[in-house]
Parts: sequence; structure tokens; C-alpha cells
Amino acid sequence: MNEKIMASESLIIKRLFNLDSNAYVEGHLDVKSKELIGLTCSLVLRCDDCVKYHLGKCKEIGLSKEQVHEAMGVATLVGGTIVVPHLRRAFEYWEELQHV
Amino acid sequence: MNEKIMASESLIIKRLFNLDSNAYVEGHLDVKSKELIGLTCSLVLRCDDCVKYHLGKCKEIGLSKEQVHEAMGVATLVGGTIVVPHLRRAFEYWEELQHV
Amino acid sequence: MNEKIMASESLIIKRLFNLDSNAYVEGHLDVKSKELIGLTCSLVLRCDDCVKYHLGKCKEIGLSKEQVHEAMGVATLVGGTIVVPHLRRAFEYWEELQHV
Amino acid sequence: MNEKIMASESLIIKRLFNLDSNAYVEGHLDVKSKELIGLTCSLVLRCDDCVKYHLGKCKEIGLSKEQVHEAMGVATLVGGTIVVPHLRRAFEYWEELQHV
Amino acid sequence: MNEKIMASESLIIKRLFNLDSNAYVEGHLDVKSKELIGLTCSLVLRCDDCVKYHLGKCKEIGLSKEQVHEAMGVATLVGGTIVVPHLRRAFEYWEELQHV
Amino acid sequence: MNEKIMASESLIIKRLFNLDSNAYVEGHLDVKSKELIGLTCSLVLRCDDCVKYHLGKCKEIGLSKEQVHEAMGVATLVGGTIVVPHLRRAFEYWEELQHV
Repeated sequence: MNEKIMASESLIIKRLFNLDSNAYVEGHLDVKSKELIGLTCSLVLRCDDCVKYHLGKCKEIGLSKEQVHEAMGVATLVGGTIVVPHLRRAFEYWEELQHV
Repeated sequence: MNEKIMASESLIIKRLFNLDSNAYVEGHLDVKSKELIGLTCSLVLRCDDCVKYHLGKCKEIGLSKEQVHEAMGVATLVGGTIVVPHLRRAFEYWEELQHV
Repeated sequence: MNEKIMASESLIIKRLFNLDSNAYVEGHLDVKSKELIGLTCSLVLRCDDCVKYHLGKCKEIGLSKEQVHEAMGVATLVGGTIVVPHLRRAFEYWEELQHV
Repeated sequence: MNEKIMASESLIIKRLFNLDSNAYVEGHLDVKSKELIGLTCSLVLRCDDCVKYHLGKCKEIGLSKEQVHEAMGVATLVGGTIVVPHLRRAFEYWEELQHV
Repeated sequence: MNEKIMASESLIIKRLFNLDSNAYVEGHLDVKSKELIGLTCSLVLRCDDCVKYHLGKCKEIGLSKEQVHEAMGVATLVGGTIVVPHLRRAFEYWEELQHV
Repeated sequence: MNEKIMASESLIIKRLFNLDSNAYVEGHLDVKSKELIGLTCSLVLRCDDCVKYHLGKCKEIGLSKEQVHEAMGVATLVGGTIVVPHLRRAFEYWEELQHV
């Protein structure tokens, strides 16, 4: 579906996608800090797909379970118990990632 | 389910439904402008069911793929990349609508 | 999954869960008022899982269909028609609860 | 300003205002339960003006400080620490209401 | 402050600003439709500054009071009564714009 | 006002405040990562007071302007242009902090 979106006539969408693919590379902040930002912002905004995407990245770049749990703990405190069902799915998905 | 909701004792709910069914008819604004408002507000508020509903209406009243994509591009810019998973599903659903 | 979350290293998450399990007991407000708060806040924040959880509790403590519908009507007015798909699922779930 | 809004050509706005003015009267739920719903939904959605409005009503209908604090505690748990600045302003406003 | 933001080292921010300044020009949709999208998305997301910005643009490009009211009516229905304080400020600001 | 809140009868509120004051200390993640999480979650949820609080902390613990800008850039991309007015105020506040 990403290809279809990139094939769209909409310039804004294409440029947003380009921006997004460059946003999490190392810069003044390292990749781990940036992925934790992506993960926790996705969690407080309660987007399961976004959380999963960033959990995959977090695993890839070597963040530990303890670090990811701690980050998600802060996000749940900020976002409230309304975040908990998403937290649950994030925990499940993180476990799945260990068996890939 | 709508019938069940309309059969509810709740006057507020019934009146909200009545309001909603009249909100998108031609008035000082034409139907296309109003459906684009309904579509993009649904997208920034990230409600897949609402987006689908308005995509169906957009197709019905003759909005083109390019117009719908452009409107959703603006909404994605306003609402951020957190909107992207919903945008993806919207693209998919728009394609499905072409085969109905 | 709750057990896994409670077994997490994250102290914040454990404490939030403890807080949550005590938040809806009788205090200065009775249990019915508190569950209605939990239900309607979940509805305006559009969290289906949370709505279901509180609907189950509402049924358990003896709130009537009319009371639950009325509370959800107020919440839908506050939160707007973007809440309606969640309201629909809430109506469906409430019916299911009657057959358990 | 309400008069100007009611004088608007927009039928939807007028009807929403009418709905709103009837939403909090006694029905299947009593007035206190309904105002607590209005207060807490306003708090989790982080609308200071709405919170103030409902705090005024809560005082008027005889809810105690302890009850209002407890309700706002539940809302803050649901909505997270992002709600805290609004909670602070709500506490301040409740105090002001005592001196009116 | 925009100059300071544009002078920032953050490439993402600069590019988002560039995207934004091109998003509302005529394309597959005309300028009026796009500004109405910007206005109503800002209203349902309850951002006063954004609403004001788009109201200014709406006036500039010749949208009538009736059209703007109608668009904001739809947005208020979608977003609920929690939007009303922002709607009030939008009405006030639109009036101010008539005297500039 | 914090003292008044802590003096409240509401146990939930007191415990949330205690949780909050311990959430950003070093653990599996260092203090900088945690403050960046607090800052960016506050920004995407568009809470000016929370953003200011975390900007103050970010300065205190030695995060550079470039790092803070970059983090806020990612948050603005995730949250969309609706975040921009808050970003502007954040930039202004960060400058003020340099003169304290």
C-alpha cells in the first residue's frame, strides 16, 4: 500500500513520507533516543500500528525490554489509563518480536 | 444497529442522528465542500469508520480520486504522521469503492 | 496479559494498575456515579476496550439500560458524532451482556 | 456571545445549543450524576472553559468539594498527567467559587 | 517567531513549514475548499491559533459569513460541544475581521 | 497550587503526583532520554504548560538547543501542523530560559 500512496498525485503525502523516512536517523540525537520518542508519542496518541512499527525498530536497534517497558511506563503515566489497552497490545507485540 | 440506536430512549442520541443526517445537504456550501469537510475532520480525528462513510459519499457525489487524495493530503499534514495508518486504509477503501 | 504487565519491571505501570483497581470503589461518590464517569470518559476518548470494560461493570452493579443510554447520550453530545461508531459498538456490546 | 451564536444562520449550531441546554436535566439519571459526567468528560478532553462551566453547576446543585475532587481524580487517572495543568486550574476555580 | 523557527537547525521543521505554505494553493481543489478544510480540521482539533489563521484566509479569499458559519457548524457537530468555547472565540474573531 | 492539590482528600491525585515526581529519574533509561520523552509527548498532546515544564528540565540537565529542536521536530512531524502554535511558544520559552 505504501507504493500506492507514493504513486499518488498528492505531493504533500509524498513529501510527508519522505520526511518521515528521514526523521529517525542519527542527528543531534542518537537513533535510540529518536525511536523512543517515536514509540512514546505513538503510544500517547494511541495508534497501535505506529506503536508496532516503532517497537520493531526499537528491537532492531538493540533497545532492551527493560528500556522499552520503562519508556512505555512514562508514556502511560502521561497519557493515562486510556492508554492501557494499547499498552497491552504493545506488550504482546514485543513478545512476538522475540520469536521472529 | 442504527435502528436500534434510533429506538433508544435517549432523546439526545436521536436528535444528534437527525442533525447528522441533515448536516451534509446543500446549503450556503455545496455538497462537495461539505463532504470534504466531513472526510478531512474524520481523518484528523482518526476515525476509520467515519472516513469510510465519507469516502463512500465522496464517490457518490462525483469527487475525483485526485480531489479526494488532495483533501486527505491536507488533513495528513494538519494531523501529522500519526494519521498515516488511517490514510493507508482510506486509500485501500477508495480502491475497493471503484469495483463496486 | 495483565499478569505479564504486572510482572513487568516497570514500577510506574504496576502502580498505575494498582491505582486503577482502586479508583472505582465507593468513596465520597458511590460506585454507580464512578462507573458512569469511567464509561463516559472512555467514550469521549473513544476507547472501545475501555467502554466495554465499564459497560460490564455498569451491568454488574445494576445500572439500567435507560441510565446507561442516557449517560452515553451526554457523552456523545460532548464528544460529537465522531463518537458514534463507538456508541454503536457500545450498544451492541450492552445487548450481548444481556445474554450472558 | 451566546446570543450572537444563537442568532447565527447555522441551524446545526442552534440545535446543538438547544440539545446542550437540555442534556443535564434530570432524566433516568439525576442531575448530580449528569454534572459529574459533564465535568469529567470536559477534564479528560482538557477544555478549561467547559470544566469551569461544570464546576459552577456542580457547586450550584450541592456537590461537595470531596465529591468533586474524587471525580476529578478518576478523570486524571483516565486522562493521565497531561490533564494536571487543567486540574490545577480547576482546583483554583473551585476555590474562587467558594467566595462568590 | 516564524523567522526564528525557519532559522532553526531542524530540517524537519523547515520542511514542514514549506509544505504548509504550499498546501492551501489551488490544485485539484480550489482555494475555498482547501481553506474550509483547514478551518474545520483546526476547529475539531481545537486549536484557536490555527482557527484564527484560517478565518483570516477565509475572509481574504471571499468566503461569506454564512459559508464560514455553516462549515463551523458541521465541524462542531463532528467534534461535539467540547468545541463550543473555540467556536465562540471563532465567532468573535470573525467579527473583529470585519472591522479591519 | 501543588500544595493544595497534595492536601486534597483525593488519594488518586496524590498518588499520581508521587508517581510523576519519580517517573523521570534515571532507571533503565537515562534522564535525558526520559525528559525528551516527556517533552515530545507533551508536545504532540499539545499541552503548553507541560512542554514548558519539560523544556526547563531539558535545559537543567544539559540538553543542547540542537537536540531539543530536533526532538521537537520529530514530535511536530508525528503530531502535524496543528502542533505548530505550541512549537512556536516552545521556541520562545527556550529562548527565555537562556536569559535566566
